Amino acid sequence: MYNHAPQDYTCPICIALDGNENDDTWIKQADIFYKDDKVAALINSKFLVSNPGHVIVVPLEHYENLYELPEDISHRIIEVSKMVALAMKKARKCDGITVRQNNEPASEQHAFHYHMHLVPRFNNDEFTLNDETYVSDPGDRIPYAQELKKYL
Amino acid sequence: MYNHAPQDYTCPICIALDGNENDDTWIKQADIFYKDDKVAALINSKFLVSNPGHVIVVPLEHYENLYELPEDISHRIIEVSKMVALAMKKARKCDGITVRQNNEPASEQHAFHYHMHLVPRFNNDEFTLNDETYVSDPGDRIPYAQELKKYL
Repeated sequence: MYNHAPQDYTCPICIALDGNENDDTWIKQADIFYKDDKVAALINSKFLVSNPGHVIVVPLEHYENLYELPEDISHRIIEVSKMVALAMKKARKCDGITVRQNNEPASEQHAFHYHMHLVPRFNNDEFTLNDETYVSDPGDRIPYAQELKKYL
Repeated sequence: MYNHAPQDYTCPICIALDGNENDDTWIKQADIFYKDDKVAALINSKFLVSNPGHVIVVPLEHYENLYELPEDISHRIIEVSKMVALAMKKARKCDGITVRQNNEPASEQHAFHYHMHLVPRFNNDEFTLNDETYVSDPGDRIPYAQELKKYL
């Protein structure tokens, strides 16, 4: 229902959650700083220009969007989002957190595996003026993941 | 913890959820199209210029942000967000849904009562270019609320 992934879609998030690193995904195992029996949290490969090192929370099983997320998994997504948001407040010393979750290409969904973005915000940052992203260097993601682990 | 509402804050969302309309809130009772024992969903008083008639999902009890949302209430928030998103797909015939939830003024939180925004998105709309809002006429919100009720 309301799906946009092509039939032969190679899901970059599933590859990473299965413990693999290859050319079909930007995600490295070191990005994943939290995992339980239902969801994982990781540093997003694409950095926002003004807010680098933001987090996504994802279900381990493949669901494309909010419309098809099972109840028990959705519960865990929001529980872990809260837990990670509190860790980000301490690790990043940020002034706020923006939660955003895109459904369908019309909402700028690029990876077709449900993911909840948690963006650290800073007073007068340029998040609303500049939503430009770039694929970060894997090494640049490690300190963000390691710092968050300390607070979980 | 991480609260920004002043000590004597008059919460415009609590006024409406208590069934009242007065000069301290823009919300009218006709905006509220869903209510259960834990949360409500309503048409946001402030319209986005390119995406009028978007929805917010709120807890009935007053909590300022994600950091302090109790588990059972957070579960209901995401359940009802999914249910309303599916209703919006039918009522609004939109091409996507953007979920956004702002914590603290640094994340553009203006009303200090937790609220999850659900924005109907249309292919090539101007949401990302123009996040301007305006306080809508109460009469302009009624058709959106009535249409959504049909699909819940």
